[in-house]
Amino acid sequence: MPAARTTEGEVGAPGGVTLPAEVQGDLRAIEDSLLRFHARHATRIGDAARHLLDAGGKRLRPLLTCAVVRALGGDPRPSIDVVAAVELVHAGSLLHDDVIDGAELRRGRSSVHAAFDAHTAILAGDFLFSWAFDRLAREGSRELQVAMGDAIRALCEGEVLERERRFDPDTDLDHARLVNRLKTAELFAYAAEAGALLAGADGPRRAAAREYGLALGEVFQTVDDLLDWEGDPGAVGKPLGRDLAEGLLTVPVTLAAERDPGLRDDVRAYWERRRVAPEADGAAAVRLRLDAAGAFAAARELADRDAARAAAAAGSLPVGPWRERLCEAARRAVARDR
Amino acid sequence: MPAARTTEGEVGAPGGVTLPAEVQGDLRAIEDSLLRFHARHATRIGDAARHLLDAGGKRLRPLLTCAVVRALGGDPRPSIDVVAAVELVHAGSLLHDDVIDGAELRRGRSSVHAAFDAHTAILAGDFLFSWAFDRLAREGSRELQVAMGDAIRALCEGEVLERERRFDPDTDLDHARLVNRLKTAELFAYAAEAGALLAGADGPRRAAAREYGLALGEVFQTVDDLLDWEGDPGAVGKPLGRDLAEGLLTVPVTLAAERDPGLRDDVRAYWERRRVAPEADGAAAVRLRLDAAGAFAAARELADRDAARAAAAAGSLPVGPWRERLCEAARRAVARDR
Repeated sequence: MPAARTTEGEVGAPGGVTLPAEVQGDLRAIEDSLLRFHARHATRIGDAARHLLDAGGKRLRPLLTCAVVRALGGDPRPSIDVVAAVELVHAGSLLHDDVIDGAELRRGRSSVHAAFDAHTAILAGDFLFSWAFDRLAREGSRELQVAMGDAIRALCEGEVLERERRFDPDTDLDHARLVNRLKTAELFAYAAEAGALLAGADGPRRAAAREYGLALGEVFQTVDDLLDWEGDPGAVGKPLGRDLAEGLLTVPVTLAAERDPGLRDDVRAYWERRRVAPEADGAAAVRLRLDAAGAFAAARELADRDAARAAAAAGSLPVGPWRERLCEAARRAVARDR
Repeated sequence: MPAARTTEGEVGAPGGVTLPAEVQGDLRAIEDSLLRFHARHATRIGDAARHLLDAGGKRLRPLLTCAVVRALGGDPRPSIDVVAAVELVHAGSLLHDDVIDGAELRRGRSSVHAAFDAHTAILAGDFLFSWAFDRLAREGSRELQVAMGDAIRALCEGEVLERERRFDPDTDLDHARLVNRLKTAELFAYAAEAGALLAGADGPRRAAAREYGLALGEVFQTVDDLLDWEGDPGAVGKPLGRDLAEGLLTVPVTLAAERDPGLRDDVRAYWERRRVAPEADGAAAVRLRLDAAGAFAAARELADRDAARAAAAAGSLPVGPWRERLCEAARRAVARDR
């Protein structure tokens, strides 16, 4: 699942390990809201959409919206269906990703594509997008609607940009960063901006919320790129360097290539070996070389800088425990391990 | 392309063979409007979307919107980007259909799926949906937005319902009609209703426009089902009875089965023969049997009745040449031959 967006570690829920009562309440309200859609005639399409939604997920994006609303002194619950719409968009995009990747698993259960079929998964994705827009059409403002459309297009463009450079060893850090921003961070930016809009915030605070979400999303995706290289290459289960095997040069690899230009030739040779013998595994050797070039440390530094950007943006929000939670969430996002 | 919606004959353009100057002008404005979208970073996704849009198409749905606006005394041109959004939705759904069907051709050129890849086609479809919503978010009313969401969900449900009964010989006329309404007619209904909304029509006229579009869309899809059985089975190019070969029982076949119950066993046997020998062609024999059961005549009668429903609904619009053109378009839709 090279194009899959963040694996969504526990850090996501703002507030840390023990969730404050408000977050627990918001999470329950989000879960309830996510089930409020229906198919009029084709129960199969609703079942397919619920198959993914029921499998869980951290609901990071709508929780982010709630946290921003609360940081600005508002209450997200009366707008919870609008808040939860971003998770429907995320779920719809996962359905389409899984078809594209031929993924068999998603969130520990069979993907919709595997449990139903690709046809139903594509249409269930469209169906969820359409429900998200329905919620914004009925209860959201024009600004929210336009911002969501922008975020969805960013997501689509990011996915296409990423794929279009598959197996191109000259992919550079700028490209990897742009892909991460488009495919992951823009939807986080939308979620945070939506919180500001729902709380009726002024322009500067709306911009600060958006910047917070963008930076947090970039942290998440950088850490996701890092996690792809963690684990025991001999262990069963999670393969090492899946992204690279799929032809994707992510942040750590492009960072390493800046420091160790010969790496690009090695990557080309690695792909060539796998092309001839798909089971050939040179990932452990690549990891050693990435580590020697300081790629992992550099990627963590990048994530740290983005987390600091997020905290700085949160500094424009009113002082209080929710602002602290947002800053803490950014710090914890760097350290997450799954 | 069994799930493809109407093949869009020349009848679509309201007004008949020689298009009135207003229709020609509206068509040009629609064509211009269709090109007003862009990709910020991934030019490939824009190229893919344009690959389909540039291949032509009759633009029936936005022309229908324009005709209804004009019938109600309005001018569609100031709202042309909103008007054209329905064509973006139609194009997006064709992109997804072609991936689902593995179609190699669309509108006489390679499908996006074939010319680019399935991944880009899925994302370009999402991209076009999102541009359609963007237009409605910026310039459309809440009613328009909600109605478009409803139409997209109907389309998704229709596609899923159709597929879920593939190779089920007990599929009946009610099911075939429901599929046709959902997968085709509801978007026509939206297009006509959008015209009423853009013209500021009252509730009864809005309902009449919607009913006109729904009935016209049903005529189109019934005739599409009929056209699947036309042509010379020995000729190269268009195979006969493609829908049935793909496992779909459309309106003519289900009508025949009501009159000739033994047909269902024959259809089962036909599928079984094709399963064993995919190149086996029994379509000509099935056509003879459908004809003997009066299926084609009955389907034309059904289309006639729907065209009469459309004309009756148009009767609630103001007297004038545009109302006449709408009635004429419904009559000509029955007689179209491609």
